[in-house]
Amino acid sequence: MIGAALAGFHSLADLRPEEVRDLLALASRLQRHPEPRALAGKILGLLFFDPSLRTLASMQAGMARLGGTSVVLTPGRGTWALETRTGVVMDGEAAEHVREAIPVLAGYVDVLGIRAFAGGKDLAADLADATFRAMVEVSPVPTINLESALDHPCQALGDWKTLDDLGVPERGKLVLSWAHHPKPLPLAVPAAVVHSAAARGMEVVVLRPEAYALPAPVLARAREAAACSGGSVVETADRAEALSGAVALYAKSWASPAHYGDAAAESALRAGLAAWRVDLDWFSGAHPACRFFHCLPVRRNVVVSDAVLDSPRSAVIPQAHNRMWAQMAVLHRLLGGPR
Amino acid sequence: MIGAALAGFHSLADLRPEEVRDLLALASRLQRHPEPRALAGKILGLLFFDPSLRTLASMQAGMARLGGTSVVLTPGRGTWALETRTGVVMDGEAAEHVREAIPVLAGYVDVLGIRAFAGGKDLAADLADATFRAMVEVSPVPTINLESALDHPCQALGDWKTLDDLGVPERGKLVLSWAHHPKPLPLAVPAAVVHSAAARGMEVVVLRPEAYALPAPVLARAREAAACSGGSVVETADRAEALSGAVALYAKSWASPAHYGDAAAESALRAGLAAWRVDLDWFSGAHPACRFFHCLPVRRNVVVSDAVLDSPRSAVIPQAHNRMWAQMAVLHRLLGGPR
Amino acid sequence: MIGAALAGFHSLADLRPEEVRDLLALASRLQRHPEPRALAGKILGLLFFDPSLRTLASMQAGMARLGGTSVVLTPGRGTWALETRTGVVMDGEAAEHVREAIPVLAGYVDVLGIRAFAGGKDLAADLADATFRAMVEVSPVPTINLESALDHPCQALGDWKTLDDLGVPERGKLVLSWAHHPKPLPLAVPAAVVHSAAARGMEVVVLRPEAYALPAPVLARAREAAACSGGSVVETADRAEALSGAVALYAKSWASPAHYGDAAAESALRAGLAAWRVDLDWFSGAHPACRFFHCLPVRRNVVVSDAVLDSPRSAVIPQAHNRMWAQMAVLHRLLGGPR
Repeated sequence: MIGAALAGFHSLADLRPEEVRDLLALASRLQRHPEPRALAGKILGLLFFDPSLRTLASMQAGMARLGGTSVVLTPGRGTWALETRTGVVMDGEAAEHVREAIPVLAGYVDVLGIRAFAGGKDLAADLADATFRAMVEVSPVPTINLESALDHPCQALGDWKTLDDLGVPERGKLVLSWAHHPKPLPLAVPAAVVHSAAARGMEVVVLRPEAYALPAPVLARAREAAACSGGSVVETADRAEALSGAVALYAKSWASPAHYGDAAAESALRAGLAAWRVDLDWFSGAHPACRFFHCLPVRRNVVVSDAVLDSPRSAVIPQAHNRMWAQMAVLHRLLGGPR
Repeated sequence: MIGAALAGFHSLADLRPEEVRDLLALASRLQRHPEPRALAGKILGLLFFDPSLRTLASMQAGMARLGGTSVVLTPGRGTWALETRTGVVMDGEAAEHVREAIPVLAGYVDVLGIRAFAGGKDLAADLADATFRAMVEVSPVPTINLESALDHPCQALGDWKTLDDLGVPERGKLVLSWAHHPKPLPLAVPAAVVHSAAARGMEVVVLRPEAYALPAPVLARAREAAACSGGSVVETADRAEALSGAVALYAKSWASPAHYGDAAAESALRAGLAAWRVDLDWFSGAHPACRFFHCLPVRRNVVVSDAVLDSPRSAVIPQAHNRMWAQMAVLHRLLGGPR
Repeated sequence: MIGAALAGFHSLADLRPEEVRDLLALASRLQRHPEPRALAGKILGLLFFDPSLRTLASMQAGMARLGGTSVVLTPGRGTWALETRTGVVMDGEAAEHVREAIPVLAGYVDVLGIRAFAGGKDLAADLADATFRAMVEVSPVPTINLESALDHPCQALGDWKTLDDLGVPERGKLVLSWAHHPKPLPLAVPAAVVHSAAARGMEVVVLRPEAYALPAPVLARAREAAACSGGSVVETADRAEALSGAVALYAKSWASPAHYGDAAAESALRAGLAAWRVDLDWFSGAHPACRFFHCLPVRRNVVVSDAVLDSPRSAVIPQAHNRMWAQMAVLHRLLGGPR
């Protein structure tokens, strides 16, 4: 299976660790040895239901570096608002259903990247990744998850490459810490990070206030990966214990699963948690080489202090740059055929 | 004239049937035999005053498949709001006039596609296609109509190809049926469909409530084409009679010409017409092979039921896919020079 | 230094006149002798904080004509709203800081064009071009100014080429005239025009109502250029005197520096200045060959009459077209390496 074409790229959980490592080897190869004609004549469709900077730019730039072309579509802004639920009477805002839109686009492009954030109201639906899966099901061409309700595999793959590039030990301790933020954010990145770090074989500690415990299915998926890789996954609210000896601190805010969809309760809860802002003193008990990670965008001096982001500990720029190389490997596998 | 370069693509009514068939032959040839360098170095400007999914994606994808590049501009969103009326004192929202914008863009690109929907207030102005024509008049480079107030020739050309591809007889009966919709929609697609089906030689029946009779100039143009092709054009409000023996049912909603620009009266009128939703029983008296057509976007369970769209009768996806091949033929003729 | 690679393109004031003329020679050469593979494999990032038509289209078209690719990002519309101030607690609208966004994008692209208009509230900050400079400082790749608070060098370079192309004498009199407009506009274009015309060696006259005198640093920069080139810069409110013998009339509206950020006072002031609309009679005392210039977008019959824009005096379309050739020269110098 190593080096084989992929049929889609929806979650790192769909891949065996050796398949992930094979993608990472390809990413590094493309970084060192450009292949400017590898995807000549190929077309990537990019369907963005939600805003983007890194994903939008790195997908287009990566496709161009392989000789291909991108087409960007933004439902509700320039492109018709799209309905994703089945069976509804479409007399509201949405002018078109994804059951038409996706197969239509599949006739124009060779691969379709889709970003559709969590609805943030119905935890069960978001945990089932229902909206994204409804689109994948009706797509005749391979699809790439550019962040769905529950996953962000391009981020996870780029982060894995960054951990490798920086020499972060595969058996080291990675702390995923909840952080303060003015808004309740999706679970996609924390779910992807906890899973992929576990799949890499790391000792994963989720540091969060009690009300921000990750949903059981998210932890279960990560622990399944840990069981295969020799890693582990635990949760705690004790910062000193969590960070003791850590080689990686990954900060990210997310909505409280305990108050999912209840904006007022969530907001009241978060108001008391402004101290969950990563600062230099968080690293005092960590391994001296401990690096700081965040998927970006990050709110300075809310999620993390200027001092951390502007220090040599910060790995956020290499993380973002590795998004491009990781995605180029995915595009190459999806469209480049067997080597 | 067959195979000759085009000076613009504004309406199928500007072309003789053999010129249309020549474009269709080129579209099919490009579909079977890619020409990935035919338009290398050429640039397509796309000026979208209104939203788009198919047109936006298929124009860019088609241009890329011929080796060319596209530039997208969206007045009022990212690009200055543009004035189209002549002689006005521009102290309102619009920062720029198309009398500057179009000649400026013509210096950057080789061909300019323009989408500008009907204003929906002044029937005479919309029937004269005044806004689109004002832009064509000041363009030094060839222009492509990507849907104007009164026409949608890319849709008509793609639909003609779909009818051919599906083996729908040239002398068969095509029913263009009005359908329910929450909003009063433009006349461009019905005008283009009734004309192009007539030009193909079909027996065209426009099925609509009395208040939705098509404007006389729209019918006159279609009947002129029918007179040349051996086809015919009639209107009726009798569904059973209309659909008896039909080989094609093309659904589309449009605003009542009798209440044009009067949103309240139109809305009251439409409220009683929810039964104008195409369902499987509409096909009971039709030819067994009768297919369902719609230009998309379509509102499921308002214009047409899920059952029809998800059945083998539906041709809406092939219709959309043929947009790209048809437009590639147009671009090839406009920019590719004599063969 | 002639023909050497540039490290960035932020202001014509950063270049010696012979460097400008070298860029103009390259622009004319690229116009006559296409180099469709000169920038093959190169990627241009375009970061638009503000609307655009010419810049957006001409940068993409110019890059494509050199074989390169563009990626467009629009903060606040499709891309996260970006913070530009340092040290702030980011609990407001902006989700990301340019201190992350710019270095991230620099990993995807080879050169970054940035448009960020003046804030229009703090004259000192705008005169210091603080926002644009904050982004340039954190960019690891060359940056191009696509209009900042105080400069618009792509416009100035294209205008210089247009003056040359039309044979406007280098020692001729150029009048930059304030014009009426419904809104207080930035100082970037007047500042760039007065500087670049002075650097070209022209006799520059700024014609404006007293309250619209240009800020001292803007005039000082232009006079410094004039001192080197043999040109001159004066201001006046006397139209007849200003236009007497002029070979070029460049109209542009700008906000009153005397009421900067005070919208109500500015609006009251401008209400009495509707006669500052360029019309044919403005040219009565000018040189017979005097041409009309404007950077566009221009509001017809507010800034200038239809009669002038539609007359042979108008040079606005060649000006806009020369934006593309000028920018191609800049891209070629920034990315093409030493010849």
